[in-house]
Amino acid sequence: MDVEKTLHMKEGVGVTSYAQNSSLQKNGLDRVKPITEEAAINMLCSTNYPRSLVIADLGCASGPNTFSVLITIIKTICGRYREASLLLPEFQVYLNDLLGNDFNSVFRALPSFHESIGEKEGVFGSCFVAGVPGSFYGRLFPSNSLHFVHSSYSLHWLSRVPLGLYGEDGVPPNKGKIYISEASPPCVPKAYFSQFKKDFSLFLKSRSEEMIDGGRMVLMLLGRRTDNPCDKDATFLWEIFAKAFAYLVSKGLVEKEKVDSYDVPFYAPSLKEVEEEVMREGSFQIEHVEVLNTHRKHNHCRKIVMAVRSINEPMLKQHFGEKINDNLFEKYGEILEKEMAQVETKEISFSIVLRKSH
Amino acid sequence: MDVEKTLHMKEGVGVTSYAQNSSLQKNGLDRVKPITEEAAINMLCSTNYPRSLVIADLGCASGPNTFSVLITIIKTICGRYREASLLLPEFQVYLNDLLGNDFNSVFRALPSFHESIGEKEGVFGSCFVAGVPGSFYGRLFPSNSLHFVHSSYSLHWLSRVPLGLYGEDGVPPNKGKIYISEASPPCVPKAYFSQFKKDFSLFLKSRSEEMIDGGRMVLMLLGRRTDNPCDKDATFLWEIFAKAFAYLVSKGLVEKEKVDSYDVPFYAPSLKEVEEEVMREGSFQIEHVEVLNTHRKHNHCRKIVMAVRSINEPMLKQHFGEKINDNLFEKYGEILEKEMAQVETKEISFSIVLRKSH
Repeated sequence: MDVEKTLHMKEGVGVTSYAQNSSLQKNGLDRVKPITEEAAINMLCSTNYPRSLVIADLGCASGPNTFSVLITIIKTICGRYREASLLLPEFQVYLNDLLGNDFNSVFRALPSFHESIGEKEGVFGSCFVAGVPGSFYGRLFPSNSLHFVHSSYSLHWLSRVPLGLYGEDGVPPNKGKIYISEASPPCVPKAYFSQFKKDFSLFLKSRSEEMIDGGRMVLMLLGRRTDNPCDKDATFLWEIFAKAFAYLVSKGLVEKEKVDSYDVPFYAPSLKEVEEEVMREGSFQIEHVEVLNTHRKHNHCRKIVMAVRSINEPMLKQHFGEKINDNLFEKYGEILEKEMAQVETKEISFSIVLRKSH
Repeated sequence: MDVEKTLHMKEGVGVTSYAQNSSLQKNGLDRVKPITEEAAINMLCSTNYPRSLVIADLGCASGPNTFSVLITIIKTICGRYREASLLLPEFQVYLNDLLGNDFNSVFRALPSFHESIGEKEGVFGSCFVAGVPGSFYGRLFPSNSLHFVHSSYSLHWLSRVPLGLYGEDGVPPNKGKIYISEASPPCVPKAYFSQFKKDFSLFLKSRSEEMIDGGRMVLMLLGRRTDNPCDKDATFLWEIFAKAFAYLVSKGLVEKEKVDSYDVPFYAPSLKEVEEEVMREGSFQIEHVEVLNTHRKHNHCRKIVMAVRSINEPMLKQHFGEKINDNLFEKYGEILEKEMAQVETKEISFSIVLRKSH
């Protein structure tokens, strides 16, 4: 799978688009708002209220969430400048996502973003927005240029389907499953963890070159509560996929081999795994950690299906073709409905504030 | 007409797209290549070979031309750093165009751009590319941030259809014509010139705030050879439109009133008009001026029609709807063919190098 081109939220603003189906992510963002605000203010103190401020949102996707965090950050910063009776700074805002992201639709929303921050009424200084296409697992910005970095619900996406998921014999070990499962052989969680470590460490190294000392990074990502890579909460939604695929295979609607060779470039780490990698890389201090538990509510079933669909459809389409999506997500919805009536699961996410230290 | 949303080259890569029909613009770019190279080298001398270089291309459109100038500039600069035995600088490249531009297609071409400048082989330092949507008749970038600005075939596009083309009575004075014509009343060229002065002066002022002292700006735009606003060479292609529209009206394919109320947000200035505005604004010194005369060749007829179509279609569509384009451009081609067999005309463009002086 060419993740660089294929991993992107469903484009446009249609019924199955990500823009229309990202309210669950919005909920997470709202809960970490105070953390983001505090991190922004701490950054100002560490960097001595600069005249020109550079903010990057990594994995911005498209849709209403893209701008809501930025509005929070900019309003918080401007409020603090006003309190200190300082002239408002200039902002350079970078919106980053992979090449395949629908930047056209992000850009079309710019006029209303400028209105939200009061730019049209001349309330704020100036806010210059740029779109930066490319993988955040690598350099994206000039050296020592960023003051504040934000990334929501993106870092659980890996740069690629883990190496080691396809043996030299070409036989995929993760048969019938598309993510780590209790049915997976041990090489599967090992391959996923190893890819996560490689990716996350490259992410930290790249940002450490790009950020100025005293800058802050607020990261929010899906994770798991326990050390067990097959943790039920973290694998729950992917197991439903495996069940829906099994049904499609049984009905001859998709080939078994196609399913065996499909795995997602995703990893839900434990907090310990995240913290260890930050420590190993060494450029950042952990300033704040928060674990968010969200109970998956039965009456959110439809929302969950639509959200999962808007995120996974472009990848599924590349591997399986156009046709299977309607059947797949109909079955997905049925199974989800049934399982959620029986067992309660949580979505775990981490919100982590890092300070660039040297 | 909402120029911000409607003025953009035809998107995508189809037969009638701008990407497929911009070879005439490429020709102009190739001819000013030495001027661009010299301006880039002069900029390095004035700014003392900075470690980090910011380049902006204003009105980048989409298609192959977007990157060809940037490749020239970056290769020239890197060559000079090597000659001076200096470490290669980091580049921040901003690609700007209006909100309606097809940035998705610009971004999809990025991997091959990185390959062209040798980024993949690690030959160059690092080149970070960002897309900046918005009108260059206003601020787009942080203060004192740009070293080199380039703009090709964009500045003849105005920010709006000139004020004063619609009287208080709501009766459009420029009947049957869509640009300045010998048949236009005097208020028409006056309104166009006044809009050009306002726009170009705002362009200069905005860049003067964004550019660092010693920075260079290379501008290329369509113009006219004489002081006469109805100059044949400058109005030729627009007069063909008027004739094609007259035919469509005579056949009942489009309403006369629709044509009367359509005018293009375009102005081909004389060199004197450009120079006077640069002098009046006062932040730039004119370092180099070159007038390029290109004879419109009869065997280029089809190319010209396709180029004119890829540029005008989005605006025509907004005013007249989807349907007229095929009929209009078929007639446009016929008339152009006939007229070009009888009369020889030239396209005049100016290439101007400005140095940010204070």
